[in-house]
Amino acid sequence: MAISMDELQLATRNHGMPLEALRYDVTPVGLHYLLVHFDVPAVPEDWRLHVGGLVSRELTLSQDELRERPSVRRIVTMECAGNGRARLEPRIVSQPWIAEAIGTGEWGGVELAPLLREAGMGDGAVEVLFTGLDRGIDGGVEQAYERSLSLDEALAGDALLAYELNGEPLPPQHGAPLRLVVPGWYGMTSVKWLERIRVLDRPFDGYQQAHAYRFRRDEDDEGEPVARMRPRSLMLPPGVPDFMTRRRFVEAGPCSLEGRAWSGVAPIESVEVGVDGEWATARVEPAPDRFAWSRWTFHWQAEPGDHELACRARDEAGNEQPLEPEWNVGGYCNNAAQSLAVTVR
Amino acid sequence: MAISMDELQLATRNHGMPLEALRYDVTPVGLHYLLVHFDVPAVPEDWRLHVGGLVSRELTLSQDELRERPSVRRIVTMECAGNGRARLEPRIVSQPWIAEAIGTGEWGGVELAPLLREAGMGDGAVEVLFTGLDRGIDGGVEQAYERSLSLDEALAGDALLAYELNGEPLPPQHGAPLRLVVPGWYGMTSVKWLERIRVLDRPFDGYQQAHAYRFRRDEDDEGEPVARMRPRSLMLPPGVPDFMTRRRFVEAGPCSLEGRAWSGVAPIESVEVGVDGEWATARVEPAPDRFAWSRWTFHWQAEPGDHELACRARDEAGNEQPLEPEWNVGGYCNNAAQSLAVTVR
Repeated sequence: MAISMDELQLATRNHGMPLEALRYDVTPVGLHYLLVHFDVPAVPEDWRLHVGGLVSRELTLSQDELRERPSVRRIVTMECAGNGRARLEPRIVSQPWIAEAIGTGEWGGVELAPLLREAGMGDGAVEVLFTGLDRGIDGGVEQAYERSLSLDEALAGDALLAYELNGEPLPPQHGAPLRLVVPGWYGMTSVKWLERIRVLDRPFDGYQQAHAYRFRRDEDDEGEPVARMRPRSLMLPPGVPDFMTRRRFVEAGPCSLEGRAWSGVAPIESVEVGVDGEWATARVEPAPDRFAWSRWTFHWQAEPGDHELACRARDEAGNEQPLEPEWNVGGYCNNAAQSLAVTVR
Repeated sequence: MAISMDELQLATRNHGMPLEALRYDVTPVGLHYLLVHFDVPAVPEDWRLHVGGLVSRELTLSQDELRERPSVRRIVTMECAGNGRARLEPRIVSQPWIAEAIGTGEWGGVELAPLLREAGMGDGAVEVLFTGLDRGIDGGVEQAYERSLSLDEALAGDALLAYELNGEPLPPQHGAPLRLVVPGWYGMTSVKWLERIRVLDRPFDGYQQAHAYRFRRDEDDEGEPVARMRPRSLMLPPGVPDFMTRRRFVEAGPCSLEGRAWSGVAPIESVEVGVDGEWATARVEPAPDRFAWSRWTFHWQAEPGDHELACRARDEAGNEQPLEPEWNVGGYCNNAAQSLAVTVR
């Protein structure tokens, strides 16, 4: 496996959550994973949110006007759709995540559905398009970053327009002054630096919807849209690391393993921990919010020698993490079980 | 150039400052570069700062006791000593920074020198050792991360023990509850998660001082300690990027270029901007603090076609950025001029 300079440019500006941050219920700002598709844009001083398209009345809202509306806070676990991409063979060239493109934020803002109802959607409305301020070229096409949701998803009541993260004003890199947050979905849906919401009478066929973020088994496969997060569990690496290899070194004796598990489809039903290929059930704590991760713990009697630790989750809809990755053209949704090399001394 | 999985593991957990963040005088939390040598450690609830070694009276200070002391705030530009490492050939395997391991924080806390004077250093004191809570293995040696300063540097009055960043409590990943900040020095000196300060009667010869962070021209060279930041300037990439290659696309016509420049040795004297190899002088603004970066601006008349933009700084001590990197064993201090490929349309 060899990473190119193009991929390294992405890997040094974007960042994952160091896995020791699995210890926090809510990920501190700066540790939550971050993928900036184009640039963190400069936001005009006269920024307004525009709601238009197939609506009865267009809305134009300032930051103050948004803050005057009823507000909600939701603890939401968010994962990049490309998480695990660097583990796929043959390799896919894009942001090379290993397993750490994850984080849980307490997002504060206004609910999306009441805003859409206020604008009044016309007959024939089928989708809602969200356009950000960040611009660039992708697949040869110049574009603002934009993604749509079906009307049903947009009105489901989970989505919010966030202007706060962890009780503080939204940081620039996470989409200030306003971002869409769609709980349960991979992060590409939660458009940052939101400027424009448009109700559409036909499905959006822009680049990030029709070309990117589709699960395609080969180049001829039209594929299916990437949407909700598949179940995944991650383990807080026990013991201490070697700086360069990140291999873990653990003292022999009782060792508390812990981690988090989540699924965008249904609550977590179970987490299993594997020690050298033998699986046993972990204790799973209730999730702090409907679309937040669940903490899990496991008692391990660490015997001297080299070991392979692993974990895998299953959700209440019966989805389970596979042991091997499922290769696909875009390198999306690789939720294969995490595996961790540990030396017990 | 090909990056290994070991390097990628570091690149996805650590992160640089996306260069569009050069627009901010003070880098927002989460955009400042971050290198966590081992892990972000769990901090014990009964954390105390211990000051001991060759002192008249040992001090043990709680967070509250530190906050009761006179506080200072300093705007400090900090760069990783390994910034630019990935540009060196033959390649050096470690955290593969390209140019973005930089940031400017407004650090708040207590000055180091009065604390050392209060402890009262004994005759024969030569160095002060700073030990963090993070532990791991580096070069085959298990260790807590620790670095020393000469007594003169420690007493020079610039160094502070910071418990705030940008007016907020110090985030976990930047060293909470307390970190050393040594203005003007590369970041390895500013020990995070500080637990212990010890006054020594001989130079510290631990791994991070005697082996790592030395500028060695070859394996037989004993080398010199890496210390103060060499001058460097960086340009905010103009126009819009291509997602994958990060190449920039700019509209033809007048184009405002801007960036920042800094040196840990002396104030910035001048910045030059290169357009296809022709150098001209940029306008440099005064730095907001003694060890903070200076903003620079340059008016460029962008003509259609492909161009190579570059910038280089010179400090008042006569140090200047080279055009080519200076290779060394550890891949430190590569302050070669930044170069940026731009297509004008």
